[in-house]
Amino acid sequence: MVFLGFGFLMAFLQRYGFSSVAFTFLLAAFALQWATLVQGFLHSLHGGYIHVGVESMINADFCAGAVLISFGAVLGKTGPAQLLLMALLEVVLFGANEFVLLSVLQVRDAGGSMTIHTFGAYFGLVLSRVLYKARLEKSKQRRGSVYHSDLFAMIGTIFLWLFWPSFNSAPTTLGDGQHRTALNTYYSLTASTLSTFALSALVGDNGRLDMVHVQNAALAGGVVVGTASEMLLTPFGALAAGFLAGTVSTLGYKFFTPILESKFKIQDTCGVHNLHGMPGILGALLGVLVTALATHDAYGDGLESVFPLIAQGQRSATSQAVHQLGGLLVTLMFASVGAGLGGLLLKLPFLDSPSDSQCFDDQLYWEVPEEHEDEAHGPLRTEEPDTQA
Amino acid sequence: MVFLGFGFLMAFLQRYGFSSVAFTFLLAAFALQWATLVQGFLHSLHGGYIHVGVESMINADFCAGAVLISFGAVLGKTGPAQLLLMALLEVVLFGANEFVLLSVLQVRDAGGSMTIHTFGAYFGLVLSRVLYKARLEKSKQRRGSVYHSDLFAMIGTIFLWLFWPSFNSAPTTLGDGQHRTALNTYYSLTASTLSTFALSALVGDNGRLDMVHVQNAALAGGVVVGTASEMLLTPFGALAAGFLAGTVSTLGYKFFTPILESKFKIQDTCGVHNLHGMPGILGALLGVLVTALATHDAYGDGLESVFPLIAQGQRSATSQAVHQLGGLLVTLMFASVGAGLGGLLLKLPFLDSPSDSQCFDDQLYWEVPEEHEDEAHGPLRTEEPDTQA
Amino acid sequence: MVFLGFGFLMAFLQRYGFSSVAFTFLLAAFALQWATLVQGFLHSLHGGYIHVGVESMINADFCAGAVLISFGAVLGKTGPAQLLLMALLEVVLFGANEFVLLSVLQVRDAGGSMTIHTFGAYFGLVLSRVLYKARLEKSKQRRGSVYHSDLFAMIGTIFLWLFWPSFNSAPTTLGDGQHRTALNTYYSLTASTLSTFALSALVGDNGRLDMVHVQNAALAGGVVVGTASEMLLTPFGALAAGFLAGTVSTLGYKFFTPILESKFKIQDTCGVHNLHGMPGILGALLGVLVTALATHDAYGDGLESVFPLIAQGQRSATSQAVHQLGGLLVTLMFASVGAGLGGLLLKLPFLDSPSDSQCFDDQLYWEVPEEHEDEAHGPLRTEEPDTQA
Repeated sequence: MVFLGFGFLMAFLQRYGFSSVAFTFLLAAFALQWATLVQGFLHSLHGGYIHVGVESMINADFCAGAVLISFGAVLGKTGPAQLLLMALLEVVLFGANEFVLLSVLQVRDAGGSMTIHTFGAYFGLVLSRVLYKARLEKSKQRRGSVYHSDLFAMIGTIFLWLFWPSFNSAPTTLGDGQHRTALNTYYSLTASTLSTFALSALVGDNGRLDMVHVQNAALAGGVVVGTASEMLLTPFGALAAGFLAGTVSTLGYKFFTPILESKFKIQDTCGVHNLHGMPGILGALLGVLVTALATHDAYGDGLESVFPLIAQGQRSATSQAVHQLGGLLVTLMFASVGAGLGGLLLKLPFLDSPSDSQCFDDQLYWEVPEEHEDEAHGPLRTEEPDTQA
Repeated sequence: MVFLGFGFLMAFLQRYGFSSVAFTFLLAAFALQWATLVQGFLHSLHGGYIHVGVESMINADFCAGAVLISFGAVLGKTGPAQLLLMALLEVVLFGANEFVLLSVLQVRDAGGSMTIHTFGAYFGLVLSRVLYKARLEKSKQRRGSVYHSDLFAMIGTIFLWLFWPSFNSAPTTLGDGQHRTALNTYYSLTASTLSTFALSALVGDNGRLDMVHVQNAALAGGVVVGTASEMLLTPFGALAAGFLAGTVSTLGYKFFTPILESKFKIQDTCGVHNLHGMPGILGALLGVLVTALATHDAYGDGLESVFPLIAQGQRSATSQAVHQLGGLLVTLMFASVGAGLGGLLLKLPFLDSPSDSQCFDDQLYWEVPEEHEDEAHGPLRTEEPDTQA
Repeated sequence: MVFLGFGFLMAFLQRYGFSSVAFTFLLAAFALQWATLVQGFLHSLHGGYIHVGVESMINADFCAGAVLISFGAVLGKTGPAQLLLMALLEVVLFGANEFVLLSVLQVRDAGGSMTIHTFGAYFGLVLSRVLYKARLEKSKQRRGSVYHSDLFAMIGTIFLWLFWPSFNSAPTTLGDGQHRTALNTYYSLTASTLSTFALSALVGDNGRLDMVHVQNAALAGGVVVGTASEMLLTPFGALAAGFLAGTVSTLGYKFFTPILESKFKIQDTCGVHNLHGMPGILGALLGVLVTALATHDAYGDGLESVFPLIAQGQRSATSQAVHQLGGLLVTLMFASVGAGLGGLLLKLPFLDSPSDSQCFDDQLYWEVPEEHEDEAHGPLRTEEPDTQA
């Protein structure tokens, strides 16, 4: 449920706060139910019944997370009907991809660098490409943030930051493994926070910081250790990974997002490529590396819970590492092909996509009250121009 | 303590944010202490000492919840002295009602559909009737929300949504019962969220959504399973109950609240009738139904913890169901009569009720800073009109 | 991690919200890492390795708390380079002070009335004295709050209020001791909330309440039982302590902070002297008192976990109480001398302290978006005056 923090993270748009927060809520509620069914069908079907429990709640929650990441890429450019159809498709693909990775390839991915972040980000980015809006500059006056909306977004950032260690460690085995996961995540997050501030000041005009970097890149440290955090990453490894993730993410916001939009026609509203896409791939590769280095000596009895196949002698560490790499490629394929085809469905005209000049605007979907109480006194306001005239 | 989320839920009023949040805080702190004493006197008096512990904290917290629900009905129309007197009376009545239900009638009500929601809502509504302000339209320009205040309210909504499963399951027996309660609540909440969005779009102009519905009706799913969530409601039952609650609640906001005000002279500021009143009664009736269907076969060993009297053969399922129904009627009676008499006390002139034109205004109780920093630079602003003139 | 709530508590300044929230974040991330190293070096160095775990996370978190308290005193008057140097020095001094108190003097201080609150507050206050800005009135138009920034600050207040019982009880022994700590903290907080409202109305013009008091003084109850909450304070003792703390803190804001600024040249932006300084000292003295009254009879078997030295007969209760008092004096000395010398370092010119007229302004460090969406449509706004002219 941690992912509801995403709602506030996305509330940075000046006139799209209602939709950001409320559609997050709607998508999460829908995806949670649908994912419980889909994942139950794939994983826990026993004699025609689906077994539910705390574990299925956590799994459904992870799936909802991926849907919300994709929402971040198309935020402001899609209507609720499109979003629900997106969630409908993405949950099925997420379930299929997760099934292939965890049950067929037997890949380890506790915090979901691959299954959640990489999948969610590239699904959203390809979707955004298919739904490209050529004349989005007509809505550009609503695309920035205002002072208070940036503060609302920081609520989301801090909420996610605080709960990320529990989030990454939720599906791991109790005891040592869970402690290790939480600590690695926590060190990585502190490192990515520091590198984000440093880089943001370095690339800013006159050393000024940019709130967008702090809101997002500071969290990249949680993404990058998603796969490796339950492994013996060591605190130093976690710090290095977090530092790298914060750096890559901040530079991505500054230099790569504009290129993505102008050259590749991918309009990435929240910059999910920087927060989830690149750090997710980095995290998967980090997982490959740490897996390849796994030995019986280093893990001792813990090897059974982290790498059961290596402990049972069915796979060598190198073979497990190759499977991990395969998992990343499968994920990228599922996300791209799925979103490519799904995007064509989402373009169906009766789904009511907002026009290029109506993007990022709450008024299309909401009864919006006035911004300030001065304006809310309707009569006063209508009188004013009259007097001046 | 979950109920402090109510503070933000009530912060939707444009010029009453300070009072909403801070009076919630004040009432909660007062009610928690007073409820510990009252409930301790009724339940855990041993040899002249009151035993306190985590359980008494949870119970006091539930009582504070009922007080804050009633606060929602009279929000903006009562001063702090009136509110403290209200809390003083309501805590005693809550304790008495809870004692009759749980100890005398031996009714089951884990999440408090009856003891908390129904009691709190109807206490507040009857109070609002007694304190009817005939010329409240004088304050109507401050009764709406503004853009940012609606976003603040969503903080409360999401906070409550996230913690509701733990809240409903807090007083239940550990183990299976607690898991079942949390899961039922969670399914019901996801269903009420979906039905709220659907209904809100259906009844809105041009299919537009209304933020008030999302803020409130989405939570009705948590209220409606308050009694039944620890029972064998089944996931399907929870989904259906949540769906129904979201529907009833949204329709209530749209059609019933205006009638309540014009015909019945009940000015329900936060719409507690829609969020707590109707879903609370529905939840109590759902409890009656599920109780009547309880069998030894279905519950197995768990029957002892959910329905100890049925398990011990002292009551049939039907008899327990009748007692549940009786509990609802007792609750409605306690709430109405108590609030009717209490309301007369609250009208005493020295309690400083705000006048009809001063309602929903923070300035009556607070040193209020300016709204925007432009205005805060007083001199600049006074100069401006001069120039124009 | 609770202390990230401080970020929002400090967000009350109208044009310093970005810096308040984000520098809190930066300082916390830096202090957590640095404190893990420093505390690890002092406490858990085994054969050249530092052992880390959940306990070291909690300890580092407490240290970060002290740094953020000091930040509150110099908020708005220091640049990020100065703040990082401050954190670098303060973490070392915190570690040294904690080592002397807990390991040398064997003082009990579970919730850190001395080690966290007193140390952090007086470190910050002395620092603020050394960095005195004679012409701070040049920035005074940005020193107040606006309506929404006060509501943001309340998010921090409620967050801290909710988590304070867990915070005080985190380092205590499991079981009875932990329950007692949580309950005492909770009673003290409810009492300080009530006394804050009462006092704020008493000292305000026309009985009006002041949001600053509610935001801060309501939390003083958590500070004051920091040392004594794990001891047999009794609920009545906790209520009395909380009541006193709320009173002292509210009166401090009203009468003492202005004197501190005009007479002692200490510009205390957040009033940490009222929330942490005075309640911290009160809490330490309360700890002395309750320790002196400790007997074998009252504590029974619990004596071993609360006062191991008394239980083992190595110290009398009076002797332990004298050591507690010594701990307070050591803390004050460490904080004052450390901050005095540290302040001289922070005045080094290359650290880029903001000038007297640039204080409390986000624009110095941030790319700041416009405040309202009306202004954000740059062209529209520039046109308007033209039309009028």
